[in-house]
Amino acid sequence: MPHLELIGLSGLPEVEAGADLASLILSALRDGGHALSPGDVLVVTHKIVSKAEGCEVPLAGLDPSPLAARWAERLGKDPRLVELALRQAVRIVRMDKGVLITETRHGLVCANSGVDASNARPGYALTLPVDPDGSAHRLREALRRATGVDTGVIISDTFGRPWREGLMNVAIGLAGVRALEDYRGRHDTFGRPLVASVLAVADAIAAAAELVMRKNLRIPVALVRGGRFEGDSRAPELLRRAESDLFR
Amino acid sequence: MPHLELIGLSGLPEVEAGADLASLILSALRDGGHALSPGDVLVVTHKIVSKAEGCEVPLAGLDPSPLAARWAERLGKDPRLVELALRQAVRIVRMDKGVLITETRHGLVCANSGVDASNARPGYALTLPVDPDGSAHRLREALRRATGVDTGVIISDTFGRPWREGLMNVAIGLAGVRALEDYRGRHDTFGRPLVASVLAVADAIAAAAELVMRKNLRIPVALVRGGRFEGDSRAPELLRRAESDLFR
Repeated sequence: MPHLELIGLSGLPEVEAGADLASLILSALRDGGHALSPGDVLVVTHKIVSKAEGCEVPLAGLDPSPLAARWAERLGKDPRLVELALRQAVRIVRMDKGVLITETRHGLVCANSGVDASNARPGYALTLPVDPDGSAHRLREALRRATGVDTGVIISDTFGRPWREGLMNVAIGLAGVRALEDYRGRHDTFGRPLVASVLAVADAIAAAAELVMRKNLRIPVALVRGGRFEGDSRAPELLRRAESDLFR
Repeated sequence: MPHLELIGLSGLPEVEAGADLASLILSALRDGGHALSPGDVLVVTHKIVSKAEGCEVPLAGLDPSPLAARWAERLGKDPRLVELALRQAVRIVRMDKGVLITETRHGLVCANSGVDASNARPGYALTLPVDPDGSAHRLREALRRATGVDTGVIISDTFGRPWREGLMNVAIGLAGVRALEDYRGRHDTFGRPLVASVLAVADAIAAAAELVMRKNLRIPVALVRGGRFEGDSRAPELLRRAESDLFR
């Protein structure tokens, strides 16, 4: 029977700019009595990637535009955080009912362009990694150099979604894993071809990882073991193209 | 370290109307060498629930409306399937670019009202269970009567979503589990209160289960072991209310 294990990695120190994430993760694995195996997938919250890559913006240097100032005033928010969210956006998707949903340079559609003040140092805010696929690839390479083992790496963030309450972890950067699993060539139990059956495997792995991670950074990494998720997808494969998007 | 196991249950027979799902699941568990433990969550694809509850509609009895006929003709679809999807809807959310997105009587927003011809008997289509929370509760009670063990039960379906490619498993019926995990009273690593941090735990469990399930019904049930997901939520807690929905 298919069997999968999810292990949350605690024991990582507070991550500083320039930190060697591969070493920190391998050390936490070792302390927990684990070693990487081929086919393991590591899900890493983008927050520690952003921190290691120095994606912390000092709020003091941000001069809010009139739009940012008015929106922040109406909602009782810090106008500098709104300004940063607008600067990280390429398109405003919705700006209503207290919610600012944007499209980022990566093509991600999410609240506040992924800008996050929680878990950043006081006076700073975290932005998303500049190139999450690149971050995932560098981490995967560093893990391979240190261990000789091929793993998959997923950089995750928690996004809201239309129609349903609650945040879900999604994959914003990938290395060595499949983004999608296409069942369309296969058949149902009556032998008929399956239609409309492309599963978002990388997002499902990210969502699963959230069950052993914690929002407060005490468990920023999850090890997913036992699946067959190898591939060479890039995260943009998970983004719906504008021409087939009914919710622009 | 937090640790979670996911086990896909194979070996269930083709489910017929009136089938005793609890017995079938317990028998498949036994054959796989597993027994239920307190706190286990069973994720069950709605398809076998719909089948057991007789939610199979004969297509021959459906007389397509002019709207259903025109939409089906434009897309080369079976007009009776479109008719059934419209009859299962309370509201059309989008009908464009070949996609029919509706709101069902349950308040679920999904393609074709969840109507599915794959995995139904030829000439029939499956509809969603009438009361998925009720289905989950009855299964949970039957499992408890048979084993004395309290488990959680999640009835799942795979839905598409805006902005991102690929289907994801979501929770459409719940018993004995929490829908949402609210982190808002907790603090980040700098001691500041976390905001906007309500996680869709039941949907994350459903998404995780998909990693060991298969679309073709050979593995229609997953056992999720090792979490602490007990609760008494009902699935509508996962539905965003109209007044805070920006994507009606």
